[in-house]
Amino acid sequence: MLRLASETEPGWVRGVSAHLPDLVLDHAHCEKKAASTAINLIFRYQHDVALMPVLSELAREELSHFELVLALMERRGWRFGPQEPSAYAKRLHAAVRSAEPHRLIDTLLVCSLIEARSCERMRLLSEELDDPELAAFHRDLLASEARHHATFVDLAIERAGREPVLARLAELAEHEAAVLRELPREPRMHSRI
Amino acid sequence: MLRLASETEPGWVRGVSAHLPDLVLDHAHCEKKAASTAINLIFRYQHDVALMPVLSELAREELSHFELVLALMERRGWRFGPQEPSAYAKRLHAAVRSAEPHRLIDTLLVCSLIEARSCERMRLLSEELDDPELAAFHRDLLASEARHHATFVDLAIERAGREPVLARLAELAEHEAAVLRELPREPRMHSRI
Repeated sequence: MLRLASETEPGWVRGVSAHLPDLVLDHAHCEKKAASTAINLIFRYQHDVALMPVLSELAREELSHFELVLALMERRGWRFGPQEPSAYAKRLHAAVRSAEPHRLIDTLLVCSLIEARSCERMRLLSEELDDPELAAFHRDLLASEARHHATFVDLAIERAGREPVLARLAELAEHEAAVLRELPREPRMHSRI
Repeated sequence: MLRLASETEPGWVRGVSAHLPDLVLDHAHCEKKAASTAINLIFRYQHDVALMPVLSELAREELSHFELVLALMERRGWRFGPQEPSAYAKRLHAAVRSAEPHRLIDTLLVCSLIEARSCERMRLLSEELDDPELAAFHRDLLASEARHHATFVDLAIERAGREPVLARLAELAEHEAAVLRELPREPRMHSRI
């Protein structure tokens, strides 16, 4: 139940297979960014006590995945370092309404969609990559991504009710699909190839 | 081996004992801030690959302590929420030299001193608090604080050499002691009472 409005094009895994060091570098940055986003939410919404432990645990899991990706890169001799951020997350977050409580709800839902797309892509990588270690690596992570997707949706529902949240999630999912269609072709977790 | 230039005044635990909910709230914020500082360093120094897993693991531990403090507060019926930051960390970081590589070294050493002071205070709380659960709570955390202190010092030494780092650490420890003497009297982990 990833609630995405589009499916990744057939051939995406074949396309990124020629650029695995770049794809995995992007993955490392995504995990780092996800941890940082969760911590930013902890700082911004300190009055919402129930959010704190959920986001903190989520940030810890993202950091633990960041460390796993770094270790994989080191084993393969792939260099970690700075990377120009993709426009994907920025363009998704641009759809967040600025007034509270919408801002929190939309932010949670945008985060849920990023996790959903990661999960979809990791499933494809786990099924289609012609590299058993990397396929297994992505298979091990995809369950967490699915769980994080559900966690963000649940946090939004607890705060704004099931029906309005699922309606807004459907709108934002259309936006996510449109953003993905317009991104430049690059070997990234959240781009076209 | 905490390398602090001053000892906390006798009577500090007695003083803060009358304000335990405030002290523990401050503790929660310190753990959250420590995680956020580690993540900021991960973003700022991405070219220094060896820093990444060490800081990531450290941030995870700080978040895990944040969750422990939140759970303690919930058990006690103490409310978590926003808090005006103390001037302590800001005044310590004001001594960081702005040009690299000094900026990184000084930042690591300031972080090491904050951990050292936390460790010293947690030891006092574990020994002197007339509240067995809270005393045990602080005893369980102080070993991590000591380890984090050593980790930050080691990271600095690996990058700038033992002798210059220990000399700079002694200077910054004097600064830390001076900042602490000048802070307003408040029930905080890093203040006078």
